[in-house]
Amino acid sequence: MANVKVPKLPTIRRLPTYLYKLSEMRKAGISIVATPELARYMNLGEIVIRKDLAITGVTGQPGVGYKVKELIDAIKSYLNWDNASEAVLVGAGSLGSALLGYEGFEEYGLKIIAAFDVNPEKIGTEIHGRSVFDIDRLEELVGRLQVRMGIICVPATYAQDVADAMVAGGIKGIWNFANVSLKVPDDVVVQREVIAGGLAVLSVKMNRKFADEEQQE
Amino acid sequence: MANVKVPKLPTIRRLPTYLYKLSEMRKAGISIVATPELARYMNLGEIVIRKDLAITGVTGQPGVGYKVKELIDAIKSYLNWDNASEAVLVGAGSLGSALLGYEGFEEYGLKIIAAFDVNPEKIGTEIHGRSVFDIDRLEELVGRLQVRMGIICVPATYAQDVADAMVAGGIKGIWNFANVSLKVPDDVVVQREVIAGGLAVLSVKMNRKFADEEQQE
Repeated sequence: MANVKVPKLPTIRRLPTYLYKLSEMRKAGISIVATPELARYMNLGEIVIRKDLAITGVTGQPGVGYKVKELIDAIKSYLNWDNASEAVLVGAGSLGSALLGYEGFEEYGLKIIAAFDVNPEKIGTEIHGRSVFDIDRLEELVGRLQVRMGIICVPATYAQDVADAMVAGGIKGIWNFANVSLKVPDDVVVQREVIAGGLAVLSVKMNRKFADEEQQE
Repeated sequence: MANVKVPKLPTIRRLPTYLYKLSEMRKAGISIVATPELARYMNLGEIVIRKDLAITGVTGQPGVGYKVKELIDAIKSYLNWDNASEAVLVGAGSLGSALLGYEGFEEYGLKIIAAFDVNPEKIGTEIHGRSVFDIDRLEELVGRLQVRMGIICVPATYAQDVADAMVAGGIKGIWNFANVSLKVPDDVVVQREVIAGGLAVLSVKMNRKFADEEQQE
């Protein structure tokens, strides 16, 4: 269990935050970063930082730190973000639109290439530069575009139908923002995003101290 | 480390999902839920379910299951969600508007009572029933309304100024959706929400198998 090669969820969730900080440093021309600086930025202890980064296979040089570019490449490679994944998004409501407008995704290897909705007023328009298609065309277009990732932002009641169409079109990974558990074949993975999860962590933090540093985020 | 009373981040993040399922069951008149049913819903093993729920102090009856109402109350009490927390939201862009429109929050003990923005076209309007105030009034209104929680949805460059005004007004917990690390006094807690964190987990899931069930989400 103490094997650093075993990916831990909080560690994986933190990797984009490291990536963001390291990319900023790189843009500023910084080539080496010391562990204490990353610790301050992440609000975590240095031991946690070293453990987190060890899963990417990169170890810092004692007394010196990490090479910024090497670490960026290692994190991207670990997450398979060195090649951009194309995705479609279904449900162009307020959350869907917010995700379409989020400029950070391309840096994280995600390229949302099309959106789908049921609303005739939205179909045929563009949201943040992406065309909104009729949801009836989801399976067909996913297949033709050979997209492997789908993002679901529809109300819970419609989410399973959307997931079925995605899977029929060839989608292998679903990022599910609907508050429902999806049934999918074994070769499809689902990451369910529960926005209230972060609120739960904040509530516990506001009312208790965590048992150890590892628990922080 | 094996002490079930130690809160683990993935467990805490999952509690709202249990709560959602249990509330649905309660509305449907179901009073007892068996562990295997929760396991199927959560896409997790039964051992993980039992461990997760044990942190609330409730243990199921072997061969029978959990009392739905008791479990709902225990989760809400653990998260301090039995009394609604009032919050203000700053930055009424697309993400901020999506959060204002999210109907699930009240069930999770969160009541967003006001929004703030810099945009003159938004100030004075209502978004999903909440008035949008001039950001210049943030500190004053937070103090007068005695709100303890603040949600930051502004671009990274403005987030620290917003946090400073929140803290000056008396905010003790910040849910930070801006991609930046905030400096706050020791008695203020920050939960940084990195939307790409879930994308990182999905990417790893699509490319690898997790080492054990506990790692799933």
